[in-house]
Amino acid sequence: SRRKVHCSSASSKLMEFPYASAPIKKLMLELLSTVDDKLGSSLHPTSTLPSHLQHFANSTDTAHASLHLRSGLPSSQIDLILGGWIHCKLPSGGALNITTLSAYLTSSTDAPHFLLELIQNSPTSLVLILDLMPRKDLILHPKYLKNYYEDTHLDTHRQRLQALPEVRPYYSPSLYIRAVISPTAILVTIDTGASQSKSIEQIIEGDISPIAKDLLHFWLESCACSAREVDASERAYLAERDRVIKNKTIEVDLGSSLPRLFGQEIADGVLDALKECYNK
Amino acid sequence: SRRKVHCSSASSKLMEFPYASAPIKKLMLELLSTVDDKLGSSLHPTSTLPSHLQHFANSTDTAHASLHLRSGLPSSQIDLILGGWIHCKLPSGGALNITTLSAYLTSSTDAPHFLLELIQNSPTSLVLILDLMPRKDLILHPKYLKNYYEDTHLDTHRQRLQALPEVRPYYSPSLYIRAVISPTAILVTIDTGASQSKSIEQIIEGDISPIAKDLLHFWLESCACSAREVDASERAYLAERDRVIKNKTIEVDLGSSLPRLFGQEIADGVLDALKECYNK
Repeated sequence: SRRKVHCSSASSKLMEFPYASAPIKKLMLELLSTVDDKLGSSLHPTSTLPSHLQHFANSTDTAHASLHLRSGLPSSQIDLILGGWIHCKLPSGGALNITTLSAYLTSSTDAPHFLLELIQNSPTSLVLILDLMPRKDLILHPKYLKNYYEDTHLDTHRQRLQALPEVRPYYSPSLYIRAVISPTAILVTIDTGASQSKSIEQIIEGDISPIAKDLLHFWLESCACSAREVDASERAYLAERDRVIKNKTIEVDLGSSLPRLFGQEIADGVLDALKECYNK
Repeated sequence: SRRKVHCSSASSKLMEFPYASAPIKKLMLELLSTVDDKLGSSLHPTSTLPSHLQHFANSTDTAHASLHLRSGLPSSQIDLILGGWIHCKLPSGGALNITTLSAYLTSSTDAPHFLLELIQNSPTSLVLILDLMPRKDLILHPKYLKNYYEDTHLDTHRQRLQALPEVRPYYSPSLYIRAVISPTAILVTIDTGASQSKSIEQIIEGDISPIAKDLLHFWLESCACSAREVDASERAYLAERDRVIKNKTIEVDLGSSLPRLFGQEIADGVLDALKECYNK
């Protein structure tokens, strides 16, 4: 159909993943295509970041990265969508590849944000972070917990993945990250180094991809494109909590890796530009 | 010394653990003795629960339980301390033994609550829940996260335990429990069924006991007996959040196990009495 052609062409322009493994690249392009298909008309058509930050490298050309940020139109519930990847040659001869997609909503809704991060630093191991980040304190808002996490059976995704012998829980060194995620968050390490049965590519294709697509589909239908009643005091609460979430997530995530991989000067430029977009 | 004699005699009156394994009984008596030593003068001298609920059994005498609740004096920061155990013969011939100690503070401080639960349903396996439960939304209160969880390096306890080959993460089926705990919470299953090196008793004595004692010591010094400035609006926030925590924790924990083990009538009596004490 015309619509499909239009969307996949738009999404291939949005972002490519030259260093990712084939199944990760396939997954990311599908996810971005779905986002573009569903939300394209709610987003600014071009990246909000200055063009020199849409692709950058370190001085020795061993580290490359690409960040693509699209802000939501004022009429939409979308605050911003950030896609990106980091590639870095390792002294061992291998490479570190980080691939991310996060999507933040505005305070016109209290529905969860979307978060996906794939961190691969060897051909046989991978860290996966996949979650719908809650917007409210779940203790003071038990209906929110019930509505988005219990009644939806989101935990079955995590259970399915953790039933695989190659999968074990991942504990982020950042206590903030552990605190900001939901009780059904998927934080796992997949290691197929000793596996007789499955390769990491098979797990990405057969297990991670369907779960990531399911969760994004749920997020698009039930969070991004579903209206919620939010009064003025609640909007102020959400806006303040989101301000902390967005800034702290940049600090903890990119703020710790970029200086190491790209040097302080490039890292500062990227972080400042991102924070400016995040806070306007 | 006289003080020590007085305290151990008081704590043996407080609660005994007739069905617990030797190392669990030893641990619990030590913890209760420490609590009594440090907080005895801040607590009502006798249990606040009606005496027929301090020990009860089911109609077929296969399940026994004991709950001991001491409220804090109005002048103290202690809201209440609940110790207890449940013992139930299993049809397999084994037994289920649950041992708990929880300690709640009043809204005159925002310091974390203390939570310990040991669930043993076979001679070679055990679930351990050990945490300082945060009183505030950690996203909106990053200083609280830093003060109680990051700067204190509480995560080293969890890391030490999870480094043992017999230990793996435990996921509570209750998303509420996963949400109410801290990012450094210890929720683990210990299984020595296939272990060549250590028995469950050795792990309780050598690994769990020192960690539980350390955490209780930290809680007593830095939470229960340390003054914090809390203004009126914050007190109202803490009181409301604690009301949810205490009632929901009873519902999820005892509310799901007591009816199954003791029948609905006894369970209702216990839960009503507990809720009355919790909410006054």
